[in-house]
Amino acid sequence: MSEVAHIGVQAVQRCDRMGAPPYSEAEGQLVRRFLTPAHRAALDSLIVWMTEAGMSVRIDAAGNLIGRYEARTPDAPALMIGSHIDTVRNGGRYDGALGVMLGVDCVEALNRGGVRLGFAIEVIAFGDEEGSRFPASMVCSRAVAGSVDPAVLEMKDADGVTLAEAFETFGLDPDSLITAARAQGEVLAFLEPHIEQGPVLEAEDLAIGVVTGIAAQKRLRVRLTGTAGHAGTTPMGLRRDPGPAAAEAILAVERICAGGEHGLVGTVGQISAKPGAFNVIPGQVEFSLDVRAETDAVRDQAAEQIVIEIEAIAARRGLDLAIEPLQTLPASPCDARLTALLSNAVRQVGVNPRRLPSGAGHDAMVMAGLCPTAMLFIRCKGGISHNPAEAVTTEDCALAARAVLAFIANLEAHRNA
Amino acid sequence: MSEVAHIGVQAVQRCDRMGAPPYSEAEGQLVRRFLTPAHRAALDSLIVWMTEAGMSVRIDAAGNLIGRYEARTPDAPALMIGSHIDTVRNGGRYDGALGVMLGVDCVEALNRGGVRLGFAIEVIAFGDEEGSRFPASMVCSRAVAGSVDPAVLEMKDADGVTLAEAFETFGLDPDSLITAARAQGEVLAFLEPHIEQGPVLEAEDLAIGVVTGIAAQKRLRVRLTGTAGHAGTTPMGLRRDPGPAAAEAILAVERICAGGEHGLVGTVGQISAKPGAFNVIPGQVEFSLDVRAETDAVRDQAAEQIVIEIEAIAARRGLDLAIEPLQTLPASPCDARLTALLSNAVRQVGVNPRRLPSGAGHDAMVMAGLCPTAMLFIRCKGGISHNPAEAVTTEDCALAARAVLAFIANLEAHRNA
Repeated sequence: MSEVAHIGVQAVQRCDRMGAPPYSEAEGQLVRRFLTPAHRAALDSLIVWMTEAGMSVRIDAAGNLIGRYEARTPDAPALMIGSHIDTVRNGGRYDGALGVMLGVDCVEALNRGGVRLGFAIEVIAFGDEEGSRFPASMVCSRAVAGSVDPAVLEMKDADGVTLAEAFETFGLDPDSLITAARAQGEVLAFLEPHIEQGPVLEAEDLAIGVVTGIAAQKRLRVRLTGTAGHAGTTPMGLRRDPGPAAAEAILAVERICAGGEHGLVGTVGQISAKPGAFNVIPGQVEFSLDVRAETDAVRDQAAEQIVIEIEAIAARRGLDLAIEPLQTLPASPCDARLTALLSNAVRQVGVNPRRLPSGAGHDAMVMAGLCPTAMLFIRCKGGISHNPAEAVTTEDCALAARAVLAFIANLEAHRNA
Repeated sequence: MSEVAHIGVQAVQRCDRMGAPPYSEAEGQLVRRFLTPAHRAALDSLIVWMTEAGMSVRIDAAGNLIGRYEARTPDAPALMIGSHIDTVRNGGRYDGALGVMLGVDCVEALNRGGVRLGFAIEVIAFGDEEGSRFPASMVCSRAVAGSVDPAVLEMKDADGVTLAEAFETFGLDPDSLITAARAQGEVLAFLEPHIEQGPVLEAEDLAIGVVTGIAAQKRLRVRLTGTAGHAGTTPMGLRRDPGPAAAEAILAVERICAGGEHGLVGTVGQISAKPGAFNVIPGQVEFSLDVRAETDAVRDQAAEQIVIEIEAIAARRGLDLAIEPLQTLPASPCDARLTALLSNAVRQVGVNPRRLPSGAGHDAMVMAGLCPTAMLFIRCKGGISHNPAEAVTTEDCALAARAVLAFIANLEAHRNA
């Protein structure tokens, strides 16, 4: 295997090796949470691999591991490449880790080829993205982007350990957390390679895709209230049953979102009827609504249309309606210029550069507060993620690594142009 | 108040008096379960009232209280009038009890008027209809109808007391249970006055109504299975979401039953989505289906049409479908001749004799195995039952009592014709 040919393949092998103890807290499943011994074991191996790949390595004040491959000149601004090294409980091997390993493989290829660029490359393994130990996610990219709230240090895990205590146990000074922030000029751009965690690329037979941005999201809770009654003694015409109204609402969500554009999706994931007995007409039905789209405007327009339809359904059926807004997250578009360079790179490795939004949140969303960002999606089997069944192919990951190298070359050419 | 004018009104007053201890097991709510001291207290008062009304009184081997008003000749067959004296937990004051009290009022009126008939009248207070103490309902009417299974004696209540032990504590011999059965010739007919427990009479501004029979019932559990997925990363076109399919099914149930006849009703009282997270497309949705109609044929035709539509919905959406039949109860029509006499009686007291099915089960359903049955429904406020808010008006109950007297007169005339 030539020095360049194995890139991407090696990344997958390293993810697989990290699928078990000591890189997992548990036997038989993968769980690697922030600042645990499993996290430490992952960093210890990454330090070796990064060093072998030609990088100088440090752990920052937030527990992020950063390997730096210098530019032709010292102190040059850096292209950061990477993702998170933590996992959810009983998670997959590639969610996060693959982006870190691909970064290491690419730097190794540059180093073995003796290539030095006008900018440094830093491969970063964020310590926490999933929020599976402490009740906040993306703490580590927030620290790098300078947007972390030091109040997070008081958060406790399930064992009552504060984040501050966990930092100390890990050998880090919690009071230094905010020093992990990078100055604007130091970071040229951030590229995050990540598995898609969705089925689009597989459905379109594409190995990789270019992310347009993180979707805008809105969460609502809808409660329809009618009158409970005996299932046997209340004729259909005398019912105020919120069930069929909720049914109409669910179909409206499907129709409005299926007819929408720009990554518009709408999901009813929870539904319940009260009192919830076989022989009682429900008095109340509650369901959740999650609406996402590439832009805030598309999301808001769809959510508004859905709300208007549900109001009409409730009015027509004589039901009481309460819609509770729970969460609104703005869209975080990737940088247009960087994304164009990434699209060219994807085309250069022979793949039609399909652009797609990311419905899930990623560190790139946070890093956008510091620098321009781009994201490369890698196809995963069945779109399955957060699950031991998560799977990628080495062929796809080799293509992804070559696309990252082509992106680096495009960025170099662009800066020199 | 004349001796006849207060009938029905007195029945309501007696139900109200029995709404609290010692007639209830609990302060602040009404709960009067089979063979409890509250049951005993109710029987003690009823014994006084029945005796005052001119009846001879006995408690049968099943704990039923029976007051007998003799015919012109001894040992004549009896018209039985009554209902159950037990309640659900935190129940209403009229469900069951009102039918017993109306029977007592009517006999009192006959007795004070010196009227003797060609048949005896027996007012019966069934000890258990609700099944709120032991896990079986209508044990007492089954005993009278000769259809009780002696195995019920082994049933235990929540405190581990068997029905046999409860009978003994009440002063009854459990081994004699089956001797409560009446011979066919002894009982001419059974008339059960009962609150409607539904909203039909109120909606049509009618004080009383004539029951055509107990509805046929079928219970099914429907499970639609698709593919769970991330709410953000799975485009609408790539989903196999069982939620909208369940929504279509619920609307089909509503449409088919609303367009049906003969008391057809369909109810989805329970629904759940798995895994049931805000941000996860459900992989499975389960809901209950309860279909009832006046006849088995109408119920079966509707249930079959619903199943066919759900099968088509699942097939069109590429979902797996499992429909589990849980319970099928045949219709129990009231006796046509008795019901005609009761309709005449209702018309004689100035009310249009609206005929309606009973969606709920009643002792009359069991008594139909022994003799012809008829049921008179009395309007209740908002159709509410099994609830402390259960309410009737004294005017309606006075009309009901007069209708029962008219029915008795019609039966006498019919037998003499």
